[in-house]
Amino acid sequence: MSTLWKSRYAQRTLGVKSSAIRELLKVTQRPEIISFGGGLPAPDVFPVERFEQACHKVLADHGAMALQYGTTEGYQPLREMIAENMARYGIVASADNVLITSGSQQALDLIGKLLINRGDRILVEAPTYLGALQAFNVYGAQYVSVPVDNDGLISDRVDESLRSGPKFMYVLPNFQNPSGVTLSEGRRHQLILLADKYGIPIVEDDPYGQLRYEGEHIAPLVVLDRENLQRDNGFTLGNVIYLSTFSKTLAPGSRLAWMVAPEDVIAKLVQLKQAADLHTSTFNQYVAYEVARDGFLDQHVRLIRRVYRERRDAMLESLKDFFPQEVTWTHPQGGLFLWVTLPDGTDSEALFHSALAENVAFVAGDCFYANNGHEGSRHMRLNFSHSRPELIREGIRRLSLAVKRQIHGSHLPSTVGD
Amino acid sequence: MSTLWKSRYAQRTLGVKSSAIRELLKVTQRPEIISFGGGLPAPDVFPVERFEQACHKVLADHGAMALQYGTTEGYQPLREMIAENMARYGIVASADNVLITSGSQQALDLIGKLLINRGDRILVEAPTYLGALQAFNVYGAQYVSVPVDNDGLISDRVDESLRSGPKFMYVLPNFQNPSGVTLSEGRRHQLILLADKYGIPIVEDDPYGQLRYEGEHIAPLVVLDRENLQRDNGFTLGNVIYLSTFSKTLAPGSRLAWMVAPEDVIAKLVQLKQAADLHTSTFNQYVAYEVARDGFLDQHVRLIRRVYRERRDAMLESLKDFFPQEVTWTHPQGGLFLWVTLPDGTDSEALFHSALAENVAFVAGDCFYANNGHEGSRHMRLNFSHSRPELIREGIRRLSLAVKRQIHGSHLPSTVGD
Repeated sequence: MSTLWKSRYAQRTLGVKSSAIRELLKVTQRPEIISFGGGLPAPDVFPVERFEQACHKVLADHGAMALQYGTTEGYQPLREMIAENMARYGIVASADNVLITSGSQQALDLIGKLLINRGDRILVEAPTYLGALQAFNVYGAQYVSVPVDNDGLISDRVDESLRSGPKFMYVLPNFQNPSGVTLSEGRRHQLILLADKYGIPIVEDDPYGQLRYEGEHIAPLVVLDRENLQRDNGFTLGNVIYLSTFSKTLAPGSRLAWMVAPEDVIAKLVQLKQAADLHTSTFNQYVAYEVARDGFLDQHVRLIRRVYRERRDAMLESLKDFFPQEVTWTHPQGGLFLWVTLPDGTDSEALFHSALAENVAFVAGDCFYANNGHEGSRHMRLNFSHSRPELIREGIRRLSLAVKRQIHGSHLPSTVGD
Repeated sequence: MSTLWKSRYAQRTLGVKSSAIRELLKVTQRPEIISFGGGLPAPDVFPVERFEQACHKVLADHGAMALQYGTTEGYQPLREMIAENMARYGIVASADNVLITSGSQQALDLIGKLLINRGDRILVEAPTYLGALQAFNVYGAQYVSVPVDNDGLISDRVDESLRSGPKFMYVLPNFQNPSGVTLSEGRRHQLILLADKYGIPIVEDDPYGQLRYEGEHIAPLVVLDRENLQRDNGFTLGNVIYLSTFSKTLAPGSRLAWMVAPEDVIAKLVQLKQAADLHTSTFNQYVAYEVARDGFLDQHVRLIRRVYRERRDAMLESLKDFFPQEVTWTHPQGGLFLWVTLPDGTDSEALFHSALAENVAFVAGDCFYANNGHEGSRHMRLNFSHSRPELIREGIRRLSLAVKRQIHGSHLPSTVGD
């Protein structure tokens, strides 16, 4: 009698709809389809052998501890390793500033729990990461969207938006999902000053920071914030909560990510995480530590960069070769995605179905915008990390057929066909 | 400038305090202390070798899949195995009724998300599982408490409490945490009829159901509910959401548990879980499937029963040998805990500190009651699964010294000392 349950659902569940992407990815799992839809790392670079050695060592040396309950904060050696690794990027944090989470999605859920009262506004990029919108929606978030261009979030537009009093800003500065663009250094400084001026903190989501294929590393917001605050008042960690993950550098199936925050914020997050899942898998934390240690993580990240760069280049080249000139796309310096802009009047949802008929898939742009409407209907997100270069080329060729049909179709309905 | 963050915390964080148990367990990790405090399985029965074989096989045969993102619902062969295993206990469910969660704590969090609006009342046992209170508190739950006796929740008192309109009942029928008591068959039937009469559903938490050391298995509420509803109207799954876990039968470090619910409730829970952590570790699900298959789980549960039964008996015997006769305790037929009742006027918090001085620890009763007050001050929860029998005997001897001092001390303050 499950109607009984339905009548009991809490108010917060009303805004939670089945994810478009989730449904879509089911369709695109047919083997004949070349999918640029998911955000999947390439399975061919998973360090399977290293995982196997690590599992063996962990169970032989620490079996009883690794299979037992652990602390909510996370496995101490892993927290210390993360703190040390981040120091090379200028992020000054001790293990006490690091909370291990069950993937970055859990970090987003904990941030929603910690900060969002029903009706609170969150400043987000337009477009932004769909999973963050899903996490925040559960807590009744409203949104203030600020558009991105090729230099990331347009920080000149942020000042005005901050006057409406959002609770915090949610920003993906590096190789943003979905657009692939990177926030410029100048704009990062500007954003930090605005955060300070209005007293509105920043959640910096950085899953891809290490996956840069060209250009120079730009300091994360959490580093610039520290420099700014130190100059003023000597605080060591301030207005930025920083998120990163092993999902893109080791393996997403381990569900291991982390948050960096001031110690008293970590203490509060620990209480919320304890109520949410007690702690992240002890075994996976021990194994990830064994996999990553002794420089393996760095060496492996170099391999991933090489492989993904080649795939990005294959996609950029194929787009140039096959796509009509009315279509433009971003040139990501890293990460997993690029963002295609179609001519005015295109409907990327319709294009999706037309592309499926050509056995190729992508994600239509609409779902990446916080405020419903059809801002995304001219856009599609393409993932370039998952398929090998030759499949990427074939997939883009197929997609170009659907694109041309759409463009021609919308202008000249009587000449459909290619 | 972390005061900035504090001023931004959401309303729901106000009720979330650092868990007494969490703080306590830190103290009790000193090696000289015999701890009956935690709820830890015995590490000496973890199937470490079987885990190692499973990790090897999973990585050799399915490395790319096991390390990749997975579906929110869970690994299909594991869901099917769980459904098959439950069928032996009369629980009629297909894989589609099973959602894999990151430990039972996540199941409790998802239930809070799904059902609780701020201020909703939940009917709970007094005492009840602390972790459930923590999970529900985040969503602003209020409580209606109904006491337990040696036959579990006193169902005669439930009827009256249901008239105040709680959102659902949260019940642990088998070897309840913390009391160790089991809900009798007659009361289970009564509870199911009450749920139906008032249209108030039940969340049945059953982490220890397989760990019965004596007496006959009693059908879970989810089974009795189905029989009741089938007779009336033919629905296959109805008023009960059922929770169980691998934490007590395989290893808690894997963080693997599951929920059983009607399909449309599962669909809603899947949406909430996706927003909470995308999915539970793919790798751990593959490994647990490999560990459990081919009858290993059954065989291993038989071993655990043998070991824990011996420890329970060691504790019961030591209590009889060492404790003064004014003190009583439950006789759990299974599970991990027993519940001690001290004479009127005893303060188990004070006893805790006095026991620490004897290098023995337990959890004082107060934290297991939903409605603050000091209902629990005459009680202590003792765990018997974690320590070997000889340590249990020595721990109970030490604890008896503190207990005698308390009892004497409270009656005859001038003769303190033993």
